[in-house]
Amino acid sequence: MDKQTTGLGMIQWEGDTWLSDPEESFGFRANWKVKRVLHREQSDFQEVAVMETVGFGRALVLDGIVQTTEKDAFIYNEMITHIPLAAYPDPKRMCIIGGGDCGAARETMKYPGLKQVDMVEIDPKVVEVSQTYLPEIAGYEQPDPRIQFHYEDGAAFVQERKGVYDVISVDSSDPVGPAAVLFEKPFYQDVHRALTEDGIMVCQSESPIFHPQVLKRVHHTLKELFPVVRTYLATVPTYPGGIWSFTLASKKYDPLLEGADRLQMEMNRYVDRGVYQGCFQLPVYVQQLLKE
Amino acid sequence: MDKQTTGLGMIQWEGDTWLSDPEESFGFRANWKVKRVLHREQSDFQEVAVMETVGFGRALVLDGIVQTTEKDAFIYNEMITHIPLAAYPDPKRMCIIGGGDCGAARETMKYPGLKQVDMVEIDPKVVEVSQTYLPEIAGYEQPDPRIQFHYEDGAAFVQERKGVYDVISVDSSDPVGPAAVLFEKPFYQDVHRALTEDGIMVCQSESPIFHPQVLKRVHHTLKELFPVVRTYLATVPTYPGGIWSFTLASKKYDPLLEGADRLQMEMNRYVDRGVYQGCFQLPVYVQQLLKE
Repeated sequence: MDKQTTGLGMIQWEGDTWLSDPEESFGFRANWKVKRVLHREQSDFQEVAVMETVGFGRALVLDGIVQTTEKDAFIYNEMITHIPLAAYPDPKRMCIIGGGDCGAARETMKYPGLKQVDMVEIDPKVVEVSQTYLPEIAGYEQPDPRIQFHYEDGAAFVQERKGVYDVISVDSSDPVGPAAVLFEKPFYQDVHRALTEDGIMVCQSESPIFHPQVLKRVHHTLKELFPVVRTYLATVPTYPGGIWSFTLASKKYDPLLEGADRLQMEMNRYVDRGVYQGCFQLPVYVQQLLKE
Repeated sequence: MDKQTTGLGMIQWEGDTWLSDPEESFGFRANWKVKRVLHREQSDFQEVAVMETVGFGRALVLDGIVQTTEKDAFIYNEMITHIPLAAYPDPKRMCIIGGGDCGAARETMKYPGLKQVDMVEIDPKVVEVSQTYLPEIAGYEQPDPRIQFHYEDGAAFVQERKGVYDVISVDSSDPVGPAAVLFEKPFYQDVHRALTEDGIMVCQSESPIFHPQVLKRVHHTLKELFPVVRTYLATVPTYPGGIWSFTLASKKYDPLLEGADRLQMEMNRYVDRGVYQGCFQLPVYVQQLLKE
């Protein structure tokens, strides 16, 4: 260990150091054995750390919570990016709120028609640390000039834009601390206003097992604002329980009816046309949750 | 705690007792806080225990490995049962190898055309303990006379049958110890012979993340024996990483082309027609694994 071996999210057990992600109310903990702490610092917003785990490669850890790992970052990043970008015909301008690991931004570059991607991340340290320690996720290449970084509060940024973006992706952390406002109706209203007249937004909407009330609330709130709301699922092994939801809200286009043929799938490791169509087929218990 | 608080699969940590499921080579552990050990005994084959967990209800634990929990047993049991039963037109006779928690057997009873279900479980203690402590999984009702229990070695049982079953479901534990033979070609050859001339088998084929080589081998071995082989996925939150695979092998019918309209979905909590179709849409990384 070249840095301190205790800290947010870390436990010592039987002589090893583990990253430990608790879902307290469920008495559940996912633990990853840590080989090395590569980086740890307190930014203006949170503790930003990168650990090398035994089984999942390097992990980005914010305030002790695993955000993404080298082994499975592609799943989340492809799912939050390709589904809305294919659902919208020929998107030109996109905005990503959060997503400081840059993995989602990297995926957008597979869509040659995109002329501008505004990446709005409140914490520059997350971007800097990801580009330094997580090139497999953030991208090795020269930064694409189409991606513009804005180190600002995402909610405030969106509030100032009207009718600008074809697609807005809300790639937030959990609804605690700085990201809590990104799960509330006033923010979604601002997103609605910042979209073009036929625009699409997507957000990560948490686990249907561990945070069913968050998913339900996000889904219902978006239904008050958008005519088309579709929740879809992926399995991200490093998230507790694996199952993870995203919710897409659209002013016009319905991903159940179109979009699969617009996917840019080169080098994809998760999303193809079958996944695009299959991910909207929700298990009955999730359908029931959304109907409540 | 009314029974011993240490034992296979259990750890003490910060004054609490946890069930801890390790994937050693990945340095990963899923941990469930335990309220109470309801039962624990050594059978002729393994340690059979039932624990009450904080977040997932009661869990059946064999040799320290969580097999199923009250909270999510329905996912596994519906997926291993409904997919092959719907894929086969009007199945009459079925055999379940393993599945001692009786959850899969219970699901079969939703198919009124089934006249006989042979449940072949090597360890009667698993059935007895499940019926006593896990009625939510095993079923409250009177045992249906169509289900016949055979407390025998599944491999030997299948070897003695020829052309008998429309559907055989291999609901085994992991490929270690007594279940190891259930992942080998000689067993699949016997299953092939025990099926009717247009019969279908299904087996659980482990996690594509933690046991990719098992899934790959099962898939390829079955392809040597059956013209139609389809791997499908579900997310079972209590299994490490969540993602779980099943592989269906069929002498004639292809679930990609038919079957959804034959599903018996009453009271289902996971499977419906959309899930039947969506579960075969594999992520690219799983497709690539199966092509290797």
